[in-house]
Amino acid sequence: MADQVKPPDFVAGEFFISRRDVVVEWGHCDPAGIVFHPRFIEYFDWCCVLLLESATGLTKAEMGRIYDFAGIPIVDLKTKFLGQVTYGDKVSIFSAMSELKRSSFEIRHALVNGGEVAVECVQTRVWCGHDPENPSKLKSRPIPDGVVRKLRAV
Amino acid sequence: MADQVKPPDFVAGEFFISRRDVVVEWGHCDPAGIVFHPRFIEYFDWCCVLLLESATGLTKAEMGRIYDFAGIPIVDLKTKFLGQVTYGDKVSIFSAMSELKRSSFEIRHALVNGGEVAVECVQTRVWCGHDPENPSKLKSRPIPDGVVRKLRAV
Amino acid sequence: MADQVKPPDFVAGEFFISRRDVVVEWGHCDPAGIVFHPRFIEYFDWCCVLLLESATGLTKAEMGRIYDFAGIPIVDLKTKFLGQVTYGDKVSIFSAMSELKRSSFEIRHALVNGGEVAVECVQTRVWCGHDPENPSKLKSRPIPDGVVRKLRAV
Amino acid sequence: MADQVKPPDFVAGEFFISRRDVVVEWGHCDPAGIVFHPRFIEYFDWCCVLLLESATGLTKAEMGRIYDFAGIPIVDLKTKFLGQVTYGDKVSIFSAMSELKRSSFEIRHALVNGGEVAVECVQTRVWCGHDPENPSKLKSRPIPDGVVRKLRAV
Repeated sequence: MADQVKPPDFVAGEFFISRRDVVVEWGHCDPAGIVFHPRFIEYFDWCCVLLLESATGLTKAEMGRIYDFAGIPIVDLKTKFLGQVTYGDKVSIFSAMSELKRSSFEIRHALVNGGEVAVECVQTRVWCGHDPENPSKLKSRPIPDGVVRKLRAV
Repeated sequence: MADQVKPPDFVAGEFFISRRDVVVEWGHCDPAGIVFHPRFIEYFDWCCVLLLESATGLTKAEMGRIYDFAGIPIVDLKTKFLGQVTYGDKVSIFSAMSELKRSSFEIRHALVNGGEVAVECVQTRVWCGHDPENPSKLKSRPIPDGVVRKLRAV
Repeated sequence: MADQVKPPDFVAGEFFISRRDVVVEWGHCDPAGIVFHPRFIEYFDWCCVLLLESATGLTKAEMGRIYDFAGIPIVDLKTKFLGQVTYGDKVSIFSAMSELKRSSFEIRHALVNGGEVAVECVQTRVWCGHDPENPSKLKSRPIPDGVVRKLRAV
Repeated sequence: MADQVKPPDFVAGEFFISRRDVVVEWGHCDPAGIVFHPRFIEYFDWCCVLLLESATGLTKAEMGRIYDFAGIPIVDLKTKFLGQVTYGDKVSIFSAMSELKRSSFEIRHALVNGGEVAVECVQTRVWCGHDPENPSKLKSRPIPDGVVRKLRAV
């Protein structure tokens, strides 16, 4: 059943789409019985790495070694809460790039519940390597061509 | 020292401003040593009720009894991450309304770290009472005049 | 590969064993790079409902309707942290009853990482229905025979 | 009012007692309207560093510099849930050592709600410095005499 869900228009385009199915846990919900909204933001964080890993076929650790990749800090977050999600709901989160610049990029996430998009999210993040002058710090770097190619493959 | 922090421009205006000081806990931070961003979203959720309670001088439970108030579900969230916040940082979060419509409203939050705004957030929420046809459900209602007056008092 | 993991002795016995595979997320880890320990406690909470649902073949909502079941509040928690679990680790959590009394019961959880038990947990919980004198409150009740039979089926 | 709460017997003894007042937030509670129990475990984690910092008068970072201190990983956790804690409750958490060995120690926490102990917790942790052979790893070390003296001062 869950497998019949099509990626919603919000994430559909020229980019690779990843999907993660989540069952809403008791502890994700608040006294109103609905998902406590920062938990959605946590779900979407899970899905960013998943998107990179699914598209490239590499783990984050492997990307670290191959591309001197150190992380993708978030700089902007926009979220619309369109429908209710409650305990036990089986939801699917679809994620895809929606814009790729030199080192920053936009990821869109759509959380689908019962066939409807319940939450839409757009994150802006920056591709970072280690700062050569201070390896414990991050420094923005161009997204590697190999990664861009994989993210663009629909 | 913390007391010298002035409300940043982002929240300053014609509305009542509340403030909450938070010390960033170990468990709020991720392996990069910075606050895991959904935790900021949780901080800002804390501050919404605080704003209403500080402005009105009523607890949420008292608002429930006096105004048939049932909650303020979020419909939109926008957040900009401008600076780093790490373990042990003593931050101040300033919160104020930035727009009051009939039943929906916008709250702005500015998280100040070391004298600089590190995170800015705008939430849109809806003032709700209980649905008379189904008391376990919420229904949008006009924000009570008494609450509006208090929120407008600078 | 993950499928080759056998239930560890800690949970093996005369009771039904459930299993949940979890990939450790970035946001579950602290600045030391290891899982922030309250997150393990959250994982184990997920696994309690999973155990009941897997054993009975019913969802929690169905158990609610069939058995006037309202919840399994926790009264005691014991956890041993034996090994490190870090970002990206693929772990398996095995859960089983270890004692069934009239209305209280003990659940054991063993979190396996790389073939070794990294965390052991024992929870004591109470089977509750709704209090007939105040349906919004819980009241302990005997665990239904049908549920006991399923939990004992190895 | 909150100031009149005396440290409960569970933490009273020959050791320094720290106290932290917490207002239970909406997002700390589950659909049953009570605190989701892993959140208590998170509260108690907050209180461990607070205890060390209050007793020594040093921040964790200062302890790091003065004592080559790197952390206090947890190895054992025992918690009893004795009473309900719900949204908006103003609770006080009292924390004190209950046993100090060479490098391991036991901390007790008692969460008081409305004059009654609602949650009791005992943690075993290990005082660690950096491993000289691999500074990114932790290695157990004797608790410094200066810290022990402060923790024993009642």
